Amino acid sequence: MISLFPDMITEACNFSIIKRALKENLIEINAVNPRDYTLDKHKKTDDTPYGGGAGMLLSCQPYIDALENIQKTENSKTIIMTPQGKCFNQSMAKEFSQKDQLIIICGHYEGFDERIIELSKAEEVSIGDFVLTGGELPALCIIDSVIRLLKGVLGDMESAEYDSHSDGLLEHPHYTKPRKYKGLEVPEILLSGNHEKIKEWRRLQQFIVTQKKRPDLFEKFLNSKLSDFDKIILKKFKII
Amino acid sequence: MISLFPDMITEACNFSIIKRALKENLIEINAVNPRDYTLDKHKKTDDTPYGGGAGMLLSCQPYIDALENIQKTENSKTIIMTPQGKCFNQSMAKEFSQKDQLIIICGHYEGFDERIIELSKAEEVSIGDFVLTGGELPALCIIDSVIRLLKGVLGDMESAEYDSHSDGLLEHPHYTKPRKYKGLEVPEILLSGNHEKIKEWRRLQQFIVTQKKRPDLFEKFLNSKLSDFDKIILKKFKII
Repeated sequence: MISLFPDMITEACNFSIIKRALKENLIEINAVNPRDYTLDKHKKTDDTPYGGGAGMLLSCQPYIDALENIQKTENSKTIIMTPQGKCFNQSMAKEFSQKDQLIIICGHYEGFDERIIELSKAEEVSIGDFVLTGGELPALCIIDSVIRLLKGVLGDMESAEYDSHSDGLLEHPHYTKPRKYKGLEVPEILLSGNHEKIKEWRRLQQFIVTQKKRPDLFEKFLNSKLSDFDKIILKKFKII
Repeated sequence: MISLFPDMITEACNFSIIKRALKENLIEINAVNPRDYTLDKHKKTDDTPYGGGAGMLLSCQPYIDALENIQKTENSKTIIMTPQGKCFNQSMAKEFSQKDQLIIICGHYEGFDERIIELSKAEEVSIGDFVLTGGELPALCIIDSVIRLLKGVLGDMESAEYDSHSDGLLEHPHYTKPRKYKGLEVPEILLSGNHEKIKEWRRLQQFIVTQKKRPDLFEKFLNSKLSDFDKIILKKFKII
């Protein structure tokens, strides 16, 4: 990761699965500071915008030199966090997880000189239609979502297979003990021990939840190749 | 923030504008750990899912008790980070920034017992169609985007007004010194000193960039109430 706030990245790597994956040598994370590469005598990494306007801009030289100093592997991918970028999603997470190396260029406070984007040949990536102060937090989200797809990071019991979005649908509701809490009871069927019925109920709930909360995703799902099991449920409950 | 990883939140608050806003007493951030509220003798906060299946689920009692223990202000909003949630965007950031208090419930590793969502009356929020290990990183993204809209957090020179997405369009390209870098030159017009022409060029670039990279946003923009200035540019350059 190329960032003016390398400590922010290092600190965040001390938690949860990123920490675990680092400890087990499944990944390596390096934070590179463009400030260490600036040729400016005052160690500046930004300057005023041509054409006037508020704020400062990140300069080409420190970023491009920092990038060129990274030894690229054969199967490497470079992305740059910008609000104009392609909106990150689970299929991009899958794509990135198949790379040997992911280089993430983060800005902070200020925008990039356009030529950084051009010269780095990086894919512009955004995590959504909202404005952030820097690329570090969204980059950490991307790292988390990519790492959990790597072999050996999640245990068998935490398999990423069942996650929301992994097949384009949202998850069904989940319930744990106690059976009754503040007047709310666990649906009877989950206590039945009938695994076939439970499987069917859960899949149906996925359809209902997705159709209600994310009709766009449900539409996409219906237009994909449906399994026989899904077709039967969709018909039985008159969803299609 | 309600989270099983309160240190992750505290650490992240040591950087950038979150740190600055805390130091200037513009905001207050409290991390509440549901583990401190569990009535289980082994301090457990999760249990196995009813109906079987892989993984564990976060239990109602520690989360609901942690939430009920927070003193709510009159103008308070509670959200819960889930993959099923409404996709966070800039207008939600604006809405949240007008609240006195924002309570964010974060899960980690595991899903919530559905009744936590129901009883908390929290709005389900997601930051995108990808899977994360916990709610902490996306919650920190939300906090960053909300804080920067609060009065006094950004200096005049960093005004949030000019950000991408603030008027539904992406930003125009920016350039800083040097004029020529690795063969790439700053567009002539930005060196002209003609402020009217520069303003027009920048707005045109916003249209071009948004139309190319995010046709969905551009469509929305064209259907909104356009200023006379925008109408003139759109016509002059035959965009509409």
